[in-house]
Order: sequence, then structure tokens, then C-alpha cells
Amino acid sequence: MSQLDRLKKQIDFIVEADKIQNIFRMNYTAEGSRRENDAEHSWHLALMAILLYEHANARVDLLKVLKMILIHDIVEIDAGDAYVYNEKAKSLQHDKEIKAADRLFNMLPDDQAQEYRALWDEFEEMGTPEAKFANSIDRMHPMLMNYSSNGRSWIENGIDAGMVTAKNKHMNDGAAFLWEYSKEFIIEPAMEKGLLGVKE
Amino acid sequence: MSQLDRLKKQIDFIVEADKIQNIFRMNYTAEGSRRENDAEHSWHLALMAILLYEHANARVDLLKVLKMILIHDIVEIDAGDAYVYNEKAKSLQHDKEIKAADRLFNMLPDDQAQEYRALWDEFEEMGTPEAKFANSIDRMHPMLMNYSSNGRSWIENGIDAGMVTAKNKHMNDGAAFLWEYSKEFIIEPAMEKGLLGVKE
Repeated sequence: MSQLDRLKKQIDFIVEADKIQNIFRMNYTAEGSRRENDAEHSWHLALMAILLYEHANARVDLLKVLKMILIHDIVEIDAGDAYVYNEKAKSLQHDKEIKAADRLFNMLPDDQAQEYRALWDEFEEMGTPEAKFANSIDRMHPMLMNYSSNGRSWIENGIDAGMVTAKNKHMNDGAAFLWEYSKEFIIEPAMEKGLLGVKE
Repeated sequence: MSQLDRLKKQIDFIVEADKIQNIFRMNYTAEGSRRENDAEHSWHLALMAILLYEHANARVDLLKVLKMILIHDIVEIDAGDAYVYNEKAKSLQHDKEIKAADRLFNMLPDDQAQEYRALWDEFEEMGTPEAKFANSIDRMHPMLMNYSSNGRSWIENGIDAGMVTAKNKHMNDGAAFLWEYSKEFIIEPAMEKGLLGVKE
């Protein structure tokens, strides 16, 4: 394939990817005025990754972490966002996301299609230090945004501390220090302020 | 400084950085329904960088490019966005951005404050292959978004092809192939469709 043909495929993917700016999450931005979208969320995770990777449990390949983060929500262009605390939606989500991954990554030149599909699979499987760390950041970010916006999405959705702990404790596998911080400086003070229900 | 003290400073910066989601640019998102903000723009540039770095003029350290891109608009939290075609606003912008950089990067632990301030300075000075490539992507992205949204912000602001060429031709220093593509597949067809005025 010529360089121009490669570039045309890459540009088509880049323009298609723009649509994640229209996928809105349950979380609000830190000041709480509106919901954040997947592009904003992905940027913020990438910023967290470059600043916080010293706290990962294992040494991580930061470039690989960033690539994973930058494309981890691309599948939601077709599959939509399933709220992490909505068990029914989450159970239906996986098949939709696989179908979306098949369509979207295959827009890229073959070598990149394979590389980015493999990175997306790796992120989802949470088996490697990079995937564990990237997932830890992906779990910490909503807690931080919720806490900064006075628990708006927690309160609106009736989320209690037990639910938050159950959904986020696997942060311990990727970044135990960030999980300890989250318990002490996000979940505990959120309970004291009445932003979350009783802790399990 | 203890690990916890470092993390607290990092988290403060990360929450402060969230504000770039409220800095809206003149460009619209690809489908043209609303203006894009700095967080969305930064995510999209980072995605372009990982997919397009093979087209850079020189071999680039991709991780460094990504770090630059992820923080390049942070200063607009204090300085606001100056439209690239507004010469008066641009000339006043530099001092505001320096002041913003002084405040914002110094929220980080000293080593990171120095690293990210240096990366921001490097991006602004456009002297290295990484800065040249990152700036090329930063110039290509608005053209791509404008073209995808039927030239909405070009038309609203009376931008012609000569102005677009003058503002973006330094892409040639970082990624000549991307500049050639932009001329042939964005600027030329945009003129044919009447989305831009006469080319110089």
C-alpha cells in the first residue's frame, strides 16, 4: 500500500473517531455543570497516566499505556456508553463492543488495525501491567470527578460506598497506592460529606 | 517529599486541568453541531500523533510528542483561546500564556514542574523534530475539522485559502507529507466547494 493510501485510511479513522465527542458519560466534569464525553475522559486519563505512572505497582511501558487509553473508548461510537453501575447494560455491552471493534479498527491499514485491536483486547483483559495500570486510572478518574463535583452523579444514581468499593477495588492490582489514596481521600471524605451511602 | 505529598500535588494539578474542558475553540467538531473544547482537541491530536508519526520528516520520540500535546493547551485555562486568525488577540496572548505556565506547572512536584514547563516551552519554540511534528498535527487538525464540518468556522470568520496557507505552511517543517496532503485533499477541494475564498 502506498504512503498516500495508508494516510487516507488513517485520516478516515481519525475523522470517524471524532464521534466519541458525542458519547456522553454519566459523570459530570469536575465543576459539575455538564456531563463529560468520551474524548474529554480519554484526554484526562492520558494526562493522569503521564503524571501518575510512578505509582503503578510494576514498571510500565508508558507509551503502550497511552495508546491503550487513547483508543479504549472508541468502540462506544457504535456501542454507546454503559454506566458501570448498570449491571444489565454492562452484560449486554460486551458483544456490542466486539462488533464495534471489528468495524472500527479495520478502517486502519492492516498493521495498525492489528496493533490497536490487540491493545484494545489487552486493555479489556486486564492481564498485563500496562492494562492493569490503565484500568486503575480509568477507575480512579470517575471517583475524582464525582468527588470534585460534589458527588452529583453518585447522588443522582443512588450509588453508595459499597458499590464504589466493589467496582473500583481492582485498582489494587494495577496501582495499590492510588487505590489507598482513593479510599482515604475520596471515598471516606465523600461518605463524611453525605455524597455516598453507607460503606460495606 | 513523600510519595503521598507528591500524589496530592499531582491530583491538584489534574483536577485544575479539568478546566480546559470549558475552553471552547473557534472550530466545530467534525459533524459541525458545536464548538470543540481544548480537552477534545488535545485528545484528537494525541490520537493523530500515534497514528501518523510515520509521516514525520524526522524520527520522533513519540512519547515526548504525546506529553507535549497532552499539556500544550493547559495555559489556556488562564489565558483563554486566541483564534489563530485574530492577529491582535494572538499578539497579546504570549504574555498571558507565560504567566499561566508559571502558575500551572508549578502546582506539580518540582521535577515534573520543570519537565512539563520545558516541554511546553519546546512546543512553543518549534525547534526540535518532536515540537515541529506536534505543531504540524496541531495545524492539520483544525483544517480537517473545518473541512469535515463543511467549512463552518472558515465561513463564519471570512477565512480564505491564502490565510489558511499562510498559517499552516510551517507544517512543511515537521511533516511535509501531511502538508502536501492538506493542500491537495483539504484546501483545494474546500476551494472547489466554496468553503474558502481565493487562494493566494
